[in-house]
Amino acid sequence: MAASLTAVQLIEKHRPTLDQALEAIRTRAYWSPHPEHPKAYGESAAGDGQAAFDALRGERLDLDQSGTDDWVGDEVSPYGLELGVKYPHPDVDVLLPAMRAAMPAWRKAGPEARAMVCLEILSRISARTHEFAHAVMHTSGQAFMMAFQAGGPHAQDRGLEAVAYAYVEQVRTPDTAEWSKPQGKRDPLNLSKQFTAVPRGVSLLIGCNTFPTWNGYPGLFASLATGNAVLVKPHPRAVLPLALTVAVAREVLAEAGFDPNLVALAAERPGEGLAKTLAVRPEIRIIDYTGSTAFGEWLEAHARQAQVFTEKSGVNTVVVDSTDDYHGMLGNLAFSLSLYSGQMCTTPQNLLIPREGIDTDAGHKSYDEVVTDLAGAVERLLGDDARANALLGAIVNPQVGERIEAAAGVGEVALASRAVPHPDFPGATVRTPVIVKLEGARKQWENGADDDAPYLSECFGPVSFAVAMDSSADAVDLLRRTVRDKGAMTVGAYTTSPEVERLVEAACLEECAQLSLNLTGGVYVNQTAAFSDFHGSGGNPAANAALCDGAFVANRFRTVEVRRPA
Amino acid sequence: MAASLTAVQLIEKHRPTLDQALEAIRTRAYWSPHPEHPKAYGESAAGDGQAAFDALRGERLDLDQSGTDDWVGDEVSPYGLELGVKYPHPDVDVLLPAMRAAMPAWRKAGPEARAMVCLEILSRISARTHEFAHAVMHTSGQAFMMAFQAGGPHAQDRGLEAVAYAYVEQVRTPDTAEWSKPQGKRDPLNLSKQFTAVPRGVSLLIGCNTFPTWNGYPGLFASLATGNAVLVKPHPRAVLPLALTVAVAREVLAEAGFDPNLVALAAERPGEGLAKTLAVRPEIRIIDYTGSTAFGEWLEAHARQAQVFTEKSGVNTVVVDSTDDYHGMLGNLAFSLSLYSGQMCTTPQNLLIPREGIDTDAGHKSYDEVVTDLAGAVERLLGDDARANALLGAIVNPQVGERIEAAAGVGEVALASRAVPHPDFPGATVRTPVIVKLEGARKQWENGADDDAPYLSECFGPVSFAVAMDSSADAVDLLRRTVRDKGAMTVGAYTTSPEVERLVEAACLEECAQLSLNLTGGVYVNQTAAFSDFHGSGGNPAANAALCDGAFVANRFRTVEVRRPA
Repeated sequence: MAASLTAVQLIEKHRPTLDQALEAIRTRAYWSPHPEHPKAYGESAAGDGQAAFDALRGERLDLDQSGTDDWVGDEVSPYGLELGVKYPHPDVDVLLPAMRAAMPAWRKAGPEARAMVCLEILSRISARTHEFAHAVMHTSGQAFMMAFQAGGPHAQDRGLEAVAYAYVEQVRTPDTAEWSKPQGKRDPLNLSKQFTAVPRGVSLLIGCNTFPTWNGYPGLFASLATGNAVLVKPHPRAVLPLALTVAVAREVLAEAGFDPNLVALAAERPGEGLAKTLAVRPEIRIIDYTGSTAFGEWLEAHARQAQVFTEKSGVNTVVVDSTDDYHGMLGNLAFSLSLYSGQMCTTPQNLLIPREGIDTDAGHKSYDEVVTDLAGAVERLLGDDARANALLGAIVNPQVGERIEAAAGVGEVALASRAVPHPDFPGATVRTPVIVKLEGARKQWENGADDDAPYLSECFGPVSFAVAMDSSADAVDLLRRTVRDKGAMTVGAYTTSPEVERLVEAACLEECAQLSLNLTGGVYVNQTAAFSDFHGSGGNPAANAALCDGAFVANRFRTVEVRRPA
Repeated sequence: MAASLTAVQLIEKHRPTLDQALEAIRTRAYWSPHPEHPKAYGESAAGDGQAAFDALRGERLDLDQSGTDDWVGDEVSPYGLELGVKYPHPDVDVLLPAMRAAMPAWRKAGPEARAMVCLEILSRISARTHEFAHAVMHTSGQAFMMAFQAGGPHAQDRGLEAVAYAYVEQVRTPDTAEWSKPQGKRDPLNLSKQFTAVPRGVSLLIGCNTFPTWNGYPGLFASLATGNAVLVKPHPRAVLPLALTVAVAREVLAEAGFDPNLVALAAERPGEGLAKTLAVRPEIRIIDYTGSTAFGEWLEAHARQAQVFTEKSGVNTVVVDSTDDYHGMLGNLAFSLSLYSGQMCTTPQNLLIPREGIDTDAGHKSYDEVVTDLAGAVERLLGDDARANALLGAIVNPQVGERIEAAAGVGEVALASRAVPHPDFPGATVRTPVIVKLEGARKQWENGADDDAPYLSECFGPVSFAVAMDSSADAVDLLRRTVRDKGAMTVGAYTTSPEVERLVEAACLEECAQLSLNLTGGVYVNQTAAFSDFHGSGGNPAANAALCDGAFVANRFRTVEVRRPA
């Protein structure tokens, strides 16, 4: 097929963006080509996006893939809508060989052409951000604005960041080299060498329910940009955002003259467990996974033929030692606990507070006062139902709801969760966070007697523990133990003491966790910005990779050398 | 302790060398700061090196390590000498914590200071190259000149290359960034960010018998340069070269003001199996291993707490299709088969030759003629015992000898191995290569009926198979299958046909193997040059990493970010 999108056109259109991305990951200053504000997408974008989403409902999303043997899908929005979209179900014995067959031409295209195609895919996804926002909202349960931003521009940023890392990693070795080794008085030895980035094989993306695009795009684009084919196995409750992504990718690949089977969807029947089947197929050489620790560890143990990148669960800690902005600290923490009803892998879970209280610009505050004031800050933040619904999210699965109910049995409830009625979606279950007081005294945990303590296992959802500690030094010790044994995507700390700051930093550097210090304004511990912040460290049990760095891309391809006499 | 070597001194001395190495890995042109010729090391170097080696024999090599509980060592040179050196045996429950305790200061020193210390270590090793050459010769069985070059400058090159990759990988993220995100009419969000490369933990180097320094230095220096401590567990028959390396590293670390326990030796008692014990210790977070596939796979399966880099076994193939330099081809192949008596992971094993013969500049040559002429070329190359001893090596273990004896039972022997007497070392067993004729017809192997064929398993040592094929296309098919199922460190091919060249290249690109085409002069398929050639591809079963690339270093450290309001 003749390409309707030529390499020259794509380079002219996207090379400047790639160059800006390369500069951003080098300086790590603020940058994004994807606007956050819904109005930036044009007058008609909101209505068009809503209409496009509505038109998808109850229909087949035909991707024209090889080896489709059934139509599946039974998504119900956490806000109550039945989506009714049907997706192709793959005969993997047909689809996987078709994907492998597509790879040589993609390899031959080279790193720049692949990057340009990836940027065109992202650019078309960006143009449909409103439509994607509805798809993300009605699969993840995120409120519209969060679905728009995190599922749209922020996810696209993370995808573009991965393309930039993948590109630079591939071109650090030149295409060719002339090698001439002196031999004293004899003629030198001369060789011509040719270096080619070659893909590992088919890359499997195992998507998650809560952030299908944000957590999915880095692996998808890193693998595609390095020459691999990518098979997308979405979470069965969050198929639509990734199915739309696959559709756009296939459309662009075909227009650029490549085989669209380079990107394909693997939707599954209820209870099929397709991820397990696919993960150990010999064709699958890379796996990107976000989800439970149990399945992540299963993949690491069993998918030995593949490079496995996992983001699992962790226990995020905030050390509260002292502050010169008590009001700002409470507001910042209240927002962090509330956003998307705490259903983020980055939401703080354990708030470690000295039993004897903390020094603040508003005077000394006892442990009880801090907890009460934080509860008050959350109540003020979420007092208005409209504002609460804009900030919270719909509960993504019944287990989260059960954890909220179980929280009262764990300790004294300092702030109870309430259900917030949603004017547009009466079927939605939107919940505010619960805060539970716990004891975490040194005597209890230093000998391992608290191995079963609630603060030492992830309680995914809007449940946080205000843990009373003997001292801030004890809090840092517990932080250290928590990161080492349970992992953490984020650590926060509030302190005006240089000594406590030093202790917390040392703990994070030695146990390998990302630290946010004294956040009191509009940046929250649970948010990271592509091109500047690393998401996860890859060095503690919560995740074996970070988004995004060299290690995330460097082993997705290999370099083959052909040398011959010059 | 005050440092007698300051950072300023080290930067002044070594930064230009690091910059040249960085340029070399970018251009991949020829470069080395380590001279290959023994005379380049000064008038007295040869005598001094011999004397230093002699002085080591029968003595304790005291490294002043923490936790030494015994003295062990029973090395006997493949050339017959008993070395009699005794090495410290570690109490790992004392040594590993001491190594961990040494790491924070090493982390704080930063990437440049670490690189400079590594270069000083390499520079002092380089100055003692003659001494190391004897140590390598009398543990590996390499002839002196090979032990000198491969165990000296070439190994030092590979170590320096790893330092260069490690350095550039760490500094691609800046130390600090100022991040300012516009907020429309409101004030921007401002954060100060600080990024620190942090080590994974203690890195374990499991050394091999045949190339203790060449295969050991890349992992050792990559881990040390990225902030890790390195525990060196040498092969029990090749302790000395790595023990000397550890001694130099400890001396330099101490002089530079660091804890020498950052590099330590783990010598073992006979049959102790210390590698297995160490590999699963929680302190061990990185493992570099060269050796058998069986133990490599054990490490990959069991050392789940660590990043595991393995070079295992493979089956190297040369496709012989046609040539315009028959004489050059035979000479080049004869040398490749003979060097170090074929005891290289890169030595060709399977020579795939069309049954109907090949076209050459000396006329058409039948399969039998090619095999006979190759045997003749080997005999001419090794006809003189002095020259043979300079090129061959002493047999490193009894299993290699058994494989030579067993070769006659595998097929028709086209060239028998002979024992070459060594004038200086009457106890040495030096052997010439054996070439065995085998059938590899399509009908035999296309249905997997030849799964047990000799050419489908590694026969480590000076045994090669001249496999008669129905055609060159069949040869490429067998090459492809061999690389995919058994792995290969090297592939060679001789052809004047653009079509066959295309087929071989496609097979190597798709199955991920490093290809040398039409080598007829002084470059051999089994040799790679640091800074330019990749050793292994990391993409087939022979090895999961290549020396050296971004993937070899990128996951030896993680980047921890600390962000705070600006």
